[in-house]
Amino acid sequence: MKKKDNTGCQKLTLKQCAKYLKRHDNYIILTHASPDGDTLGSAYALYYGLNEIGKRACVICPDVIPQKYDYFARITDHVTRENATVIAVDVADKRLLGDLKEEFGDIVDLNIDHHISNTQFAKNLYLDADAAATAEIIFELLTLMRVNINDITAKALYTGIATDTGSFKYSTVTAKTHIIAAMLYDYNINASEINRLMFDTKSKKLIDLERQVLETAEFHFEDKCMLLCVTAEMQEKTGCSGTELEGIAVISRSVDGVKVGVTMKQTDDNEFKVSVRTYEPFDASEICKKLGGGGHRGAAGASVKGNLKEVKQKVLLAVSECLEEQNAGISTAL
Amino acid sequence: MKKKDNTGCQKLTLKQCAKYLKRHDNYIILTHASPDGDTLGSAYALYYGLNEIGKRACVICPDVIPQKYDYFARITDHVTRENATVIAVDVADKRLLGDLKEEFGDIVDLNIDHHISNTQFAKNLYLDADAAATAEIIFELLTLMRVNINDITAKALYTGIATDTGSFKYSTVTAKTHIIAAMLYDYNINASEINRLMFDTKSKKLIDLERQVLETAEFHFEDKCMLLCVTAEMQEKTGCSGTELEGIAVISRSVDGVKVGVTMKQTDDNEFKVSVRTYEPFDASEICKKLGGGGHRGAAGASVKGNLKEVKQKVLLAVSECLEEQNAGISTAL
Repeated sequence: MKKKDNTGCQKLTLKQCAKYLKRHDNYIILTHASPDGDTLGSAYALYYGLNEIGKRACVICPDVIPQKYDYFARITDHVTRENATVIAVDVADKRLLGDLKEEFGDIVDLNIDHHISNTQFAKNLYLDADAAATAEIIFELLTLMRVNINDITAKALYTGIATDTGSFKYSTVTAKTHIIAAMLYDYNINASEINRLMFDTKSKKLIDLERQVLETAEFHFEDKCMLLCVTAEMQEKTGCSGTELEGIAVISRSVDGVKVGVTMKQTDDNEFKVSVRTYEPFDASEICKKLGGGGHRGAAGASVKGNLKEVKQKVLLAVSECLEEQNAGISTAL
Repeated sequence: MKKKDNTGCQKLTLKQCAKYLKRHDNYIILTHASPDGDTLGSAYALYYGLNEIGKRACVICPDVIPQKYDYFARITDHVTRENATVIAVDVADKRLLGDLKEEFGDIVDLNIDHHISNTQFAKNLYLDADAAATAEIIFELLTLMRVNINDITAKALYTGIATDTGSFKYSTVTAKTHIIAAMLYDYNINASEINRLMFDTKSKKLIDLERQVLETAEFHFEDKCMLLCVTAEMQEKTGCSGTELEGIAVISRSVDGVKVGVTMKQTDDNEFKVSVRTYEPFDASEICKKLGGGGHRGAAGASVKGNLKEVKQKVLLAVSECLEEQNAGISTAL
């Protein structure tokens, strides 16, 4: 049964979601802006799956799709806006549609997502906050729909799962995540090559940038918090920008003893994209909420206005509040 | 049936291996020197398993066990040398027993391993070169023996599998690897915390060392080969040494386009430990064989005598030979 609440958003079960997809046609599948492996893997796996059952579909991404996803993110059919059914995958908030927000933000028919922070902006929503990746949901959906999965679909799904779990390392991973991965090995996915592309390949210029970023390292709150900064100047000088900088945020949490890692990437003269990575018991999404953003418990983000000094102050205030609030609950993890 | 060849080594099946373990008692379980997560995870999981069925056992490691393994590598019972049954786990060659080679090298009763390069030095050998980790074999063995697996055993097994596969990223991973991982999630293993400890935690001094090592980067053979150097001086100045340097080798292969990554770690005035990491179609073990070492297809090592310049020359010669031999077979991987 569909549950409707005061947001006007119908919550679907997986079965209802499958039925919905079988009933409609002419799908426009939207990813979020600054696309990552999960939003792209989910969108393309759904696209290939819908194709398999004779549906017309296309994938539209608000930003240019990075070349490294070429092995599954191919050019899709064209679907005209009229009479299209609009699906968003892995999109927690309509603002994350970026340049597509204006056109599609209020007309998404179905949203398939795993973010607990989902703002229920679509007409219908299938949300599984226990899924480690939206691609995990798409796998279950295609399986339930008895849609044939082929090699390229499997590659897209594996990419979504591997990238959103840091290659099966995060606390969001469950037994189900590994079982789905095992099932995807039935296909010719060349997982090690996908992992090499997604995790272990850096350009020379990125290595150069990382070295510069590490020099900005600051430690706060008894070394529990590490702060890194990527200035516009560094990005210009090294020629590294956009999605190439994704991996930097991980470094901020990689130092022994650091529980909260913060990376401040300059996106404009007076604006920084703040990425927060935390370890238990600290909650990155709580910190980012205080800065006007959101995300997951272990990884979240926000856009903060101001110069470096101002942004740093705002960030440190948010972190200190969270450390105080959450410090009470610290327990040894192992 | 046991197969005996001219090495005098009996090849066992998994079932025979299980029977052997049930029949004997008073086990001394040996790990290889410079212990990693797989040799330790395998040894301790086997130790806990044997304990569960009332056998006496102890684990002996040729080197000090790094503190980060404390969550499963506890102090074991003492087993006297007389009448002990000696087991080696994840030990491909008796030389890898390090300081224990003298005492145990020629009296290993049973060797359980997954290295194709195993030199068959033990009286009995169970070798599964398709296993991504020796811990995968230990899991199957304990399951076959119907031995109760408890949380600490599961932590040891997960650690072995996760560390030897670079967190499920390497080409050695199979569907079985993921299925075993899924089964280990039935226990209270706190996998994300294990992964944090194993993969994503660096000391401040290591980050400092890495920055220095990156400055030594040299590119050869049309940038297909990257060479890194860790001098004795760097190790002294930063205070980083031994197993702390494990992760450096991975960096050598992380640059876009690099197929062969080489790290030369100074271990003595006139000696370097050479670690080679390769991507298909290049074979790290072939390169290291030319240098008097060995290992896996994607990761291998050798100890090479000489000063930095001499070692570099030897390494570059070995790499160039392998590039020539293997270049013929290059194909696009995805």
